[in-house]
Amino acid sequence: MSTVPAARVGDSVDAIDTPALVIDLDAMEANLAALSAFAGSRKLRLRPHAKMHKSGAIAALQMQAGAVGVCVQKVGEAEALADAGVSDIFISNEVIAPGKLARVAALAGRVRLAIAVDSALGIERLAAALQAAGATLDVFVEIDVGQGRCGVAPTAAGALAHQVVAHGLRFAGLQAYHGRAQHLRTLAEREAAIRHAVTAVRTAQASITSAGMQCPLVTGAGTGSFAFEAASGVYGELQCGSYLFMDRDYAENEIDTATGVPRFAHALFVKSQVMSRGAAHAVVDAGHKAHAIDSGLPGLWQRADLAYGNGGDEHGILTARTPGATLPALGETVWLVPGHCDPTVNLHAHFIAVRGGLAGGVVEAVWPIDARGRLT
Amino acid sequence: MSTVPAARVGDSVDAIDTPALVIDLDAMEANLAALSAFAGSRKLRLRPHAKMHKSGAIAALQMQAGAVGVCVQKVGEAEALADAGVSDIFISNEVIAPGKLARVAALAGRVRLAIAVDSALGIERLAAALQAAGATLDVFVEIDVGQGRCGVAPTAAGALAHQVVAHGLRFAGLQAYHGRAQHLRTLAEREAAIRHAVTAVRTAQASITSAGMQCPLVTGAGTGSFAFEAASGVYGELQCGSYLFMDRDYAENEIDTATGVPRFAHALFVKSQVMSRGAAHAVVDAGHKAHAIDSGLPGLWQRADLAYGNGGDEHGILTARTPGATLPALGETVWLVPGHCDPTVNLHAHFIAVRGGLAGGVVEAVWPIDARGRLT
Repeated sequence: MSTVPAARVGDSVDAIDTPALVIDLDAMEANLAALSAFAGSRKLRLRPHAKMHKSGAIAALQMQAGAVGVCVQKVGEAEALADAGVSDIFISNEVIAPGKLARVAALAGRVRLAIAVDSALGIERLAAALQAAGATLDVFVEIDVGQGRCGVAPTAAGALAHQVVAHGLRFAGLQAYHGRAQHLRTLAEREAAIRHAVTAVRTAQASITSAGMQCPLVTGAGTGSFAFEAASGVYGELQCGSYLFMDRDYAENEIDTATGVPRFAHALFVKSQVMSRGAAHAVVDAGHKAHAIDSGLPGLWQRADLAYGNGGDEHGILTARTPGATLPALGETVWLVPGHCDPTVNLHAHFIAVRGGLAGGVVEAVWPIDARGRLT
Repeated sequence: MSTVPAARVGDSVDAIDTPALVIDLDAMEANLAALSAFAGSRKLRLRPHAKMHKSGAIAALQMQAGAVGVCVQKVGEAEALADAGVSDIFISNEVIAPGKLARVAALAGRVRLAIAVDSALGIERLAAALQAAGATLDVFVEIDVGQGRCGVAPTAAGALAHQVVAHGLRFAGLQAYHGRAQHLRTLAEREAAIRHAVTAVRTAQASITSAGMQCPLVTGAGTGSFAFEAASGVYGELQCGSYLFMDRDYAENEIDTATGVPRFAHALFVKSQVMSRGAAHAVVDAGHKAHAIDSGLPGLWQRADLAYGNGGDEHGILTARTPGATLPALGETVWLVPGHCDPTVNLHAHFIAVRGGLAGGVVEAVWPIDARGRLT
């Protein structure tokens, strides 16, 4: 028996069982439109990161709003989204295992597919898998733009791009995402980090030119930094993911709306309820099996007078933050704003999508989280 | 399409795709036998917590080894395990929502069921749901023994037990689990915490006696503290869960094997592989979507010369911890010991159970994680 959704289409918000992952559709659609408008006005391609929502239904909404396709991090995510109808997918990550590369090659026969590489061995194995399947795809060379994780040094980009072509593959450009920059709190810090990334991209482009090739596209950027990549003149495609839902952590970033950057609204919530009460605390039924805490504990929606404390896997412990705060009663609903949306979504089987707000709204859709737990 | 397991029965350990959740069966069976022997020698009932493994197959092994049944925290976990053949389940947590209590009542008609209560409202709603379904179950009154989460004050136990009986329900005893005690590092700290819990239990028992009733059973204890509950003379049932797999966090507890407490072995691992290499770091394909980090980052199995750094949702970053350490090459396997087993298991769809060790072993079983993501 698979997991039963916490509500059905047509249910009132009050009737949604807890804990449940709830989307405020009005807020989500405003976020969707705002980033599409931003990218359109800058003549930039938008390829949102679907590692965040893992949902074919949401990817379809993004593509209807102008996205050229989506990014994912795992082959299994790409397969699940292809099964759910997504037709253009970029695996913005390295794949080394021959068994996985055979799956990549099989998938390349079904959808428009791209992948990142950062090693000669990776290119060699990818080429062998594609040749065996008689398939082809776009290959982006990933460069390290300051994250210190995957990607070659910018000066090595030309040599790697040359190897891509020498193996009969299509060189599509540079993957240049700076993950660590996204959560730097001040505008000045993020601007400095992306200035560093842009310098790295220019170095990589020069390396590619020296190798006698052209760089068709530079892709990267996230919800914390995209305004800087957009203004750089070198990035042609934005990969923001979290903009659609926002989370407690991203909302703490300083932003400058005067530059045309939209202020995205919280659109993703965990509905929870009080299941135990003490004299000075209330226990809710959502712990860190219901929301990820890698970026800190969740916020409490419209209850600034309360504090959420870690109650373990299945519980959260609410206490008063301001004197005289009234703790919620047994059975009362409390809405949590996840600390980090991506791994929170991965804990749930369904989105419960609500129209008309959290107070008084109605369930308009129930979407499976198609790529939940697709780790390989 | 549901998630494809990372290996099939008969595959070599080398052939397991990554990242994957792997059980070393030899180590797990030794842990299983050791706690069963401990409980048997003390004439204590064993009811392991299945919130940890969420698996009907593993619950069956525990019951074959002498466990009277299992505990869970969620109604959905109880339903999933009942569907997987588990016949005796204690929901060691409060349930307040009428919709969930109707499911509890339905389940009480299918398996031997028990539940915890800590409020008059909870008892009233539970009784109404059971009456509507014509069902019955065992009711444990939860007391707060020092955790500061759920449970009434020990002095209130008698009044609540009386209400249980007044509503026509069976009063089965006290739920008295001290979660916070489990991870105190020194023996002295854990001994003091459980001394406090035992005093609370005695107070609750006196309160029950004063109300003219008897307390049939006291149930509680975890992997960090069970020796103290076992020695107390008041606990009749142990609820340890993590002993079966162990994790990096529990392994850091000081233990005293001279008192007959077994030293449990690491039996749960995340198999990962290097998918990107830098000059001074290696990137593995398991981040915190593959292992929970609420109790800290994973350990590296038999690679004390390396350090695991947080690389985000999908990556881990390995660096040298000792001078001259050789970083693993592209494609090389690295075994992670999860920081906390319970929420790590919840991230995966299957256990890959291996016989003959991580080096050279063979996949003996693939078990679905039946109650993964059963949040409601």
